[in-house]
Amino acid sequence: MTDTFRIAAMSGSLRHASYNRGLLRAAQATAPAEVTIEILEVDLPLFNEDLEEAEPASVALFKKRVHGANAVLIATPEYNWGIPGGLKNAIDWCSRPPARNVLKQKPVAILGATTGPWGTTRAQNALRQTLIFTDSLTLVQPWVFVNNAKEKFDDAANLTDERTKEQVAGLVAALVAWTKRLG
Amino acid sequence: MTDTFRIAAMSGSLRHASYNRGLLRAAQATAPAEVTIEILEVDLPLFNEDLEEAEPASVALFKKRVHGANAVLIATPEYNWGIPGGLKNAIDWCSRPPARNVLKQKPVAILGATTGPWGTTRAQNALRQTLIFTDSLTLVQPWVFVNNAKEKFDDAANLTDERTKEQVAGLVAALVAWTKRLG
Amino acid sequence: MTDTFRIAAMSGSLRHASYNRGLLRAAQATAPAEVTIEILEVDLPLFNEDLEEAEPASVALFKKRVHGANAVLIATPEYNWGIPGGLKNAIDWCSRPPARNVLKQKPVAILGATTGPWGTTRAQNALRQTLIFTDSLTLVQPWVFVNNAKEKFDDAANLTDERTKEQVAGLVAALVAWTKRLG
Amino acid sequence: MTDTFRIAAMSGSLRHASYNRGLLRAAQATAPAEVTIEILEVDLPLFNEDLEEAEPASVALFKKRVHGANAVLIATPEYNWGIPGGLKNAIDWCSRPPARNVLKQKPVAILGATTGPWGTTRAQNALRQTLIFTDSLTLVQPWVFVNNAKEKFDDAANLTDERTKEQVAGLVAALVAWTKRLG
Repeated sequence: MTDTFRIAAMSGSLRHASYNRGLLRAAQATAPAEVTIEILEVDLPLFNEDLEEAEPASVALFKKRVHGANAVLIATPEYNWGIPGGLKNAIDWCSRPPARNVLKQKPVAILGATTGPWGTTRAQNALRQTLIFTDSLTLVQPWVFVNNAKEKFDDAANLTDERTKEQVAGLVAALVAWTKRLG
Repeated sequence: MTDTFRIAAMSGSLRHASYNRGLLRAAQATAPAEVTIEILEVDLPLFNEDLEEAEPASVALFKKRVHGANAVLIATPEYNWGIPGGLKNAIDWCSRPPARNVLKQKPVAILGATTGPWGTTRAQNALRQTLIFTDSLTLVQPWVFVNNAKEKFDDAANLTDERTKEQVAGLVAALVAWTKRLG
Repeated sequence: MTDTFRIAAMSGSLRHASYNRGLLRAAQATAPAEVTIEILEVDLPLFNEDLEEAEPASVALFKKRVHGANAVLIATPEYNWGIPGGLKNAIDWCSRPPARNVLKQKPVAILGATTGPWGTTRAQNALRQTLIFTDSLTLVQPWVFVNNAKEKFDDAANLTDERTKEQVAGLVAALVAWTKRLG
Repeated sequence: MTDTFRIAAMSGSLRHASYNRGLLRAAQATAPAEVTIEILEVDLPLFNEDLEEAEPASVALFKKRVHGANAVLIATPEYNWGIPGGLKNAIDWCSRPPARNVLKQKPVAILGATTGPWGTTRAQNALRQTLIFTDSLTLVQPWVFVNNAKEKFDDAANLTDERTKEQVAGLVAALVAWTKRLG
């Protein structure tokens, strides 16, 4: 259907019971019918400039999905006051080579969950900085910082906190509106 | 010999003709006899919290070398205004789990080379921020920002620029002095 | 005239022969006829939350000019890897109280000049981070990093470098286009 | 008395009932007898490079107190994801001219309080970045991020939360130990 709004969603953490993947599932569950959200895993080979002209198949597929989406949604934990190496690696691949940077002029929204008190504030800032270089059009507000994740997700890492669900749904709605505003 | 000062050096880029690995070879070539510098490659599996209690062998070896060193030297390119995902991933592994964080209280010096004009200024700041969380003791100054790398290295990525060689040697000397000052 | 596009331009440095004010004069000189650029000085009293409900007259006037503009242009030097305290202070005033944040949803472009080699890369990143909190719509690219300013300006701090003039004119054009795109 | 350890403490906020000044009073109240903490206000004229050779008297006095201290303690609120313009301005003055940078090689510890949930995480990172340029020796850990300040201070902005008092006392003790370690 031509009116579908497609979001490519990156899950920053690879562990099975990732809270951040849980945020993306909550985004899927709360999204309006015309919005489809595909969750991409960042388990790609490490970027190596010697390989960029002949991308590994997994990278080519990842980039294809980002390229084909109307917008991107990134859920990131905070590792060492930055984003996980794996997520950064996926973004590095997406940006290369410059003529095939699939994040260029792409609307992006970000959010993040952590078991600690500070809500991925520092990881999200690091991510925003990287998305300037990629020439992405990152949604400024609202912010979604999810702290104390153990209290807000069940044992299967499904989001149970109602207020956070509303925040996630609000972020997706804002991303769609931002994309349309950009034309 | 007991008086050897051992530096574990991380090369942030994986490509064959990496300028940053070239900086580390220049550090080796200019270091005093009592300083040994081992260059570590960051080609590790992606960090996954589900695996951290049973580290892959390559990770365990990488961490062992960092742990056994008196100090750490990190040479980083700048990817998307941050450090490469592969380097971040290696640091993420080094930091986990908290009780086996091999960067804790470790003296660290950083430098970086890029073909562009801005010398990895933003990548080095991102790296410094991450090294606060790991409780590392990062040398404050001098800084070594190497820009326009094509003019300063030969085709085999060996450093040829004399002023930069002096900067690299000065950084290693400062790292040794900083480590001794910290006691 | 109703078709005029008005830009409020903040000069980050207070010294008489400021290169950054020189950049803003170059923006004025190269702007198309329908674009007017008013240069604002950031010599405001220090922000004090106790005073924010009764703003000093100079602050009220500064905020009025920002509020009335179609877009904002900020030229910043780099002081201690950040923006000058005076510029930050002006932005702090502009953002307060939240209901009268004149930077909210305002299109902004940034640039900077320095006598050093690194072109205000770090100051501009700090500024971008601050403008997220203010909910401003900061132009992502192009970037204008002006290094080695003594070679590019005359003794009266007028910009003489042709390539930089083109960059400045290009930034103003991009800011106008960005503002129109945002609708 | 020659054995006194003197700390120059900067209060980042100028308002009367500042929580950050309250943190510094708590530091005074909990400090051991041999540690004296002088609270400095950052109400200085705006930095202007044209004036730096003939510093205003208030600036000269501020710098003298920083210079004469064994270490520096900075309590900062978060304004627009950075430090207040007034605090940045005081640091800018302290750093100039380079030959009279009173923060050079000075041990520094930082902390911050905010009424919001995120504890000044972003302001403290911005401050750490600035203190690299000034060549200060910033204590890496422990961190003191004080959120939800209204619940932890009384109406006169005196700290009442016992856990936070312990954190403040611990930070001062760590700053003294860090200074002695640096020799």
